[in-house]
Amino acid sequence: MNVRPIGILRSCFKEKFGTPRQPHVAPGAMATLTIAGDHKPEQSLAGLDGFSHVWLVSWFHLNTNKRPLPKVHPPRLRGGTVGLFASRSPHRPNPIGLSLARLVRVDGATLHLAGIDLVDGTPILDVKPYIPECDAAPDASSGWTLAAPFCGLDVELTPRAEADVAAAEARLGVQGLRELLVDLLRQDIRNPRDRAQSREGLDLGFFLHDFETRFSVKGRTAVVLRLETGTRMHRNPRRRG
Amino acid sequence: MNVRPIGILRSCFKEKFGTPRQPHVAPGAMATLTIAGDHKPEQSLAGLDGFSHVWLVSWFHLNTNKRPLPKVHPPRLRGGTVGLFASRSPHRPNPIGLSLARLVRVDGATLHLAGIDLVDGTPILDVKPYIPECDAAPDASSGWTLAAPFCGLDVELTPRAEADVAAAEARLGVQGLRELLVDLLRQDIRNPRDRAQSREGLDLGFFLHDFETRFSVKGRTAVVLRLETGTRMHRNPRRRG
Repeated sequence: MNVRPIGILRSCFKEKFGTPRQPHVAPGAMATLTIAGDHKPEQSLAGLDGFSHVWLVSWFHLNTNKRPLPKVHPPRLRGGTVGLFASRSPHRPNPIGLSLARLVRVDGATLHLAGIDLVDGTPILDVKPYIPECDAAPDASSGWTLAAPFCGLDVELTPRAEADVAAAEARLGVQGLRELLVDLLRQDIRNPRDRAQSREGLDLGFFLHDFETRFSVKGRTAVVLRLETGTRMHRNPRRRG
Repeated sequence: MNVRPIGILRSCFKEKFGTPRQPHVAPGAMATLTIAGDHKPEQSLAGLDGFSHVWLVSWFHLNTNKRPLPKVHPPRLRGGTVGLFASRSPHRPNPIGLSLARLVRVDGATLHLAGIDLVDGTPILDVKPYIPECDAAPDASSGWTLAAPFCGLDVELTPRAEADVAAAEARLGVQGLRELLVDLLRQDIRNPRDRAQSREGLDLGFFLHDFETRFSVKGRTAVVLRLETGTRMHRNPRRRG
């Protein structure tokens, strides 16, 4: 049983650190997916533009674990564990991801997507339309996730960061970059070990679009310090692999 | 990129013919999934019983086509076509299925499931909890499926069939078998070619649990004729492979 990508996702998230753990978190998180020519996208995408949302079935290609563990530590349980199959952890027997994305538009063989929780370069195995009569369970109960409500950080930008955001929006031709940064950092993107080990206010960074977002967390507030261009991934000791 | 089943689904549907094309169609459609021991189910299923619904990521093992076609004929379009990626057809570049199922209970390594649209023997690649905040899009628009509303058949049972249903419920120790048959046959399980080629009222059959349901369709009414035990699959020329 072999699988093969139908396309590779091009996402604003350039590394795992900073990539949301769920879709919907950042409506401004953009990506494109171009369907490979051997799948005849001019025919196989016909009618997809009538749907507002699609499922992306993906391959967690950055997993480094050899074998998944049967228990995982969801970040919002802050140390607590649940069974692998009661979680959406990427570390699974078959490293297949399932993400609901907003379909902004279809342009030839390319899907423009928003609300993404996948890193740049993710292999996509399938695209399926979101059909509420199949896919929605309005009466669903949500297990442990309900008992662990989301408690976000406050997010602030320094004057330098505000100026850098305006410059990046102009350079990239995008809007909503400030909202994207706020949506991302509200989640507290540090993993539990970082939270425990980092000294307060340590300068951290993650790559987004063509820049590195430098920020720090003190107490319950994340502060965007500046956006840097020209830094290189893999050189930065604070980057998570 | 290889995948391997975490378990094999044991479903009330014994062949493709009669298996619903979507979940939710038949709330009484039951299945069990036992997670293989190498995935340590006593740990990896911990916490799953708090969820009412799960995603089953499955492998369409009964596909016989060598290559998927870029356009498909969804049954409710009655001859019309849409692009493969705008459909939930099983005939996909990667034959991966996505089904939302109701989780009735977890009993050791075994999940008891309802509302199933998968045939007995389907390899399951992953189980994920349904988490509304990730998986629901209350504002979604549904493309071509909205323009093709479901128009069900009326379903009747002969007195013989009513008696057979009562006997089967007693024998199997299940309830709701009559409702299950009605839910299934309301969908008009015949494919478009059968509908066009079958003469009115032709005696058809499909296997469910341990019996064969014999039925016929006249106009907009499906009639369950009888339930037969002791018939064998693969011998019946009206069975779809």
